Amino acid sequence: MPVLKLKTDKMFTDITEKVEKLIPKNFQGLANIYSPHTTCCVFQTENELLHLVDVRFFLDKLVPYIKQPEGEHRNIKYLHDMISLRNDVPIDESINGHSHIRSLFFNSSENIPIRKSKLLLGEWKRIFFVELDPMRNRELIITFVKGHN
Amino acid sequence: MPVLKLKTDKMFTDITEKVEKLIPKNFQGLANIYSPHTTCCVFQTENELLHLVDVRFFLDKLVPYIKQPEGEHRNIKYLHDMISLRNDVPIDESINGHSHIRSLFFNSSENIPIRKSKLLLGEWKRIFFVELDPMRNRELIITFVKGHN
Amino acid sequence: MPVLKLKTDKMFTDITEKVEKLIPKNFQGLANIYSPHTTCCVFQTENELLHLVDVRFFLDKLVPYIKQPEGEHRNIKYLHDMISLRNDVPIDESINGHSHIRSLFFNSSENIPIRKSKLLLGEWKRIFFVELDPMRNRELIITFVKGHN
Repeated sequence: MPVLKLKTDKMFTDITEKVEKLIPKNFQGLANIYSPHTTCCVFQTENELLHLVDVRFFLDKLVPYIKQPEGEHRNIKYLHDMISLRNDVPIDESINGHSHIRSLFFNSSENIPIRKSKLLLGEWKRIFFVELDPMRNRELIITFVKGHN
Repeated sequence: MPVLKLKTDKMFTDITEKVEKLIPKNFQGLANIYSPHTTCCVFQTENELLHLVDVRFFLDKLVPYIKQPEGEHRNIKYLHDMISLRNDVPIDESINGHSHIRSLFFNSSENIPIRKSKLLLGEWKRIFFVELDPMRNRELIITFVKGHN
Repeated sequence: MPVLKLKTDKMFTDITEKVEKLIPKNFQGLANIYSPHTTCCVFQTENELLHLVDVRFFLDKLVPYIKQPEGEHRNIKYLHDMISLRNDVPIDESINGHSHIRSLFFNSSENIPIRKSKLLLGEWKRIFFVELDPMRNRELIITFVKGHN
């Protein structure tokens, strides 16, 4: 089970070619690309920059970094970011409650069919690594499973 | 790996029976139903018309065809639809920025367990092809993988 | 294909250890954890209580139990809950249109890679059963598929 190592400050990184290089010879079945991290995901979409900006704007609107003031205390934080209430993290824990919620719009893993060792992505689909946090060391785990003939 | 060909102007098409007919004999494992298109998806839910209307209304609200005016220029377009800025498409490229964003709510593929050649969908779940664009020629790729005994 | 039986009034139940116990010996490949129900799902995230509250608040806001009044009739119901219009259910059918829509944010199943019979969940990821309805008898179907060496 190969591992793709990544470290990037870009939100979307097209990893299609990196995955293709790992496909076994004469292979037919599925590739599963899995993120073992909670704030980076795998996503299939068109590699068109303006569309990717649309996705970013959509998330910025629905899941902003700072929420609209709410409740009696005009809270603007995600509860996950109320660090002083959490005993499980140091006081300088990074603020990423929004990154966790944004992951609801993507998947932990994606499955893609393979025929004759080629990903059947169609004309426009590409595989993206989605980084929802600042740059970190990340790994994606690739698993190939044989299809039934 | 069988391929289901579809062409419909309906948003939701129940494809459960079509998938069932493709299951190999005496099979146990998983079916993966994959869309190689960026603006049509696979979805599992109840085949109840009013619920499907709820899904449509929810998407119309959260991801409208025309956005609320935003920014200094009162922009109402998805950036993907600012065709005059894109060198990669003809000027009559279809307007479907919203279809791309709506795909965030569905999946490129769904996996469903199979025992004794029957999909284990439970009492209410059905498999839907979701068309987010106007009618087009579409294909879904079905992959069966054997389960471990 | 083992089945996990659950019945809980909690929205999020960490089932990681229950899944781990079912992994075959010396196994490498994928686990698929599948919900055959329309209003309970499988989800991978950090088991941090304040984050889980954030998820709940996010859903309460985007998909409230009672909608803002809309249209000429100031409708506050999901159409799925207009029971008197549906011939397929008794008049005391439970009100859960919002639960159906909330399922758009989760998945019917999750796939997780396994090496040496261990789930490769990374440091923070855990597997959750997500109950979007009041307490019911539920089943999750676990399928293991071998990876290609």
